[in-house]
Amino acid sequence: MELKEYFPMWEKLTTAQQSRLLSASDQRSYKKGQIVHNGLTDCTGLFLIQSGQLRAYTISDEGREITMYRLFERDICLFSASCIMRSIQFDIVIEAEKDTKVWLIQAEAYKKVMEESAPLANYTNEIMASRFSDVMWLMDQIMWKSFDRRLAAFLLEESSLENTSTLKITHEIIGNHLGTAREVVTRMLRYFQSEGMVKLSRGTVELTDMDKLEKLSNK
Amino acid sequence: MELKEYFPMWEKLTTAQQSRLLSASDQRSYKKGQIVHNGLTDCTGLFLIQSGQLRAYTISDEGREITMYRLFERDICLFSASCIMRSIQFDIVIEAEKDTKVWLIQAEAYKKVMEESAPLANYTNEIMASRFSDVMWLMDQIMWKSFDRRLAAFLLEESSLENTSTLKITHEIIGNHLGTAREVVTRMLRYFQSEGMVKLSRGTVELTDMDKLEKLSNK
Repeated sequence: MELKEYFPMWEKLTTAQQSRLLSASDQRSYKKGQIVHNGLTDCTGLFLIQSGQLRAYTISDEGREITMYRLFERDICLFSASCIMRSIQFDIVIEAEKDTKVWLIQAEAYKKVMEESAPLANYTNEIMASRFSDVMWLMDQIMWKSFDRRLAAFLLEESSLENTSTLKITHEIIGNHLGTAREVVTRMLRYFQSEGMVKLSRGTVELTDMDKLEKLSNK
Repeated sequence: MELKEYFPMWEKLTTAQQSRLLSASDQRSYKKGQIVHNGLTDCTGLFLIQSGQLRAYTISDEGREITMYRLFERDICLFSASCIMRSIQFDIVIEAEKDTKVWLIQAEAYKKVMEESAPLANYTNEIMASRFSDVMWLMDQIMWKSFDRRLAAFLLEESSLENTSTLKITHEIIGNHLGTAREVVTRMLRYFQSEGMVKLSRGTVELTDMDKLEKLSNK
């Protein structure tokens, strides 16, 4: 996918602005598990995802994690260029969850074009509003949904992303996504197993009753 | 405070843009307790706070509340004009927490100017990034800080906002701010009382040991 296809307002940029962005871009590849951005002091640039999957998460002082949102093919990752706005005052870590290929646009060049182009500034606004909506959705989940519903929803989402009903995932990693201790995950998965919704074996969780999980997650 | 003082980039707008914003603005007053914005379908416009205090919160299906952030004199309230961006996909309620005077700029006019003015679009970006940072801070608190610390921090903040050590506030309202049931608040306040940090009486919480509360909130 070409760079300009990520920007529906590309034609509203001047030729000079277009070439500025193009010349500040190159392609990068990241291996599954690699950290591609780490906190506020890190300002690599914007990632435009060509293939693969990124996960944005925060991490507590004690090292516990919670997934904020994920980015897929065609998505733009803004917070890896947090220095483009001084009001972004939070730390986020971004890792490649699968082998990932991206366009990288250098933060400084992007900022310069955004400062003079209303179409690019407004488009950037929309990207941020999308991520804001993701986080507000998550907040809602955490505050008001019980853990069994969140776990059921997570398993179904993973199953759909990986296109399999047998997930290769440890209880610890599930805990990292949901901001919960491993023990809590294990306890709930065992309950799910006793209800016939999953089947557990070493390193895998097999979803055995999608309907029941679906019903639980929407409760 | 004049309208233009809210916008540090005012001089970068054209005369036509300035008058468009000015002619789409008027002053409004709200009484303490009044709901000034209610969810996504409501798109009144931007509030520029002249005096008073607004509280932005979300509400669960069961009617439980949690405070997202507050806005004070000189602040701009963006999400009361959520229709200016289509990617804003979450419901927020905004109430006047004190008698409040605002400038109101109609959403449609603001959107029009923002679409053609890079300075205004970038400034709007910064406002949104500030609120995003508030919400990320809150998420961090909810996920990783225990309730005693959050309650101590809340009491200290209220005390500083109201400029008094004797807060006129019910346990239910505290619960609404922190997203917690009234009973949980009452139990924790009683524990604080037994530790000499507060003194409880009908409808008031008196902070009696600021140092100890401070220490607890920073733990």
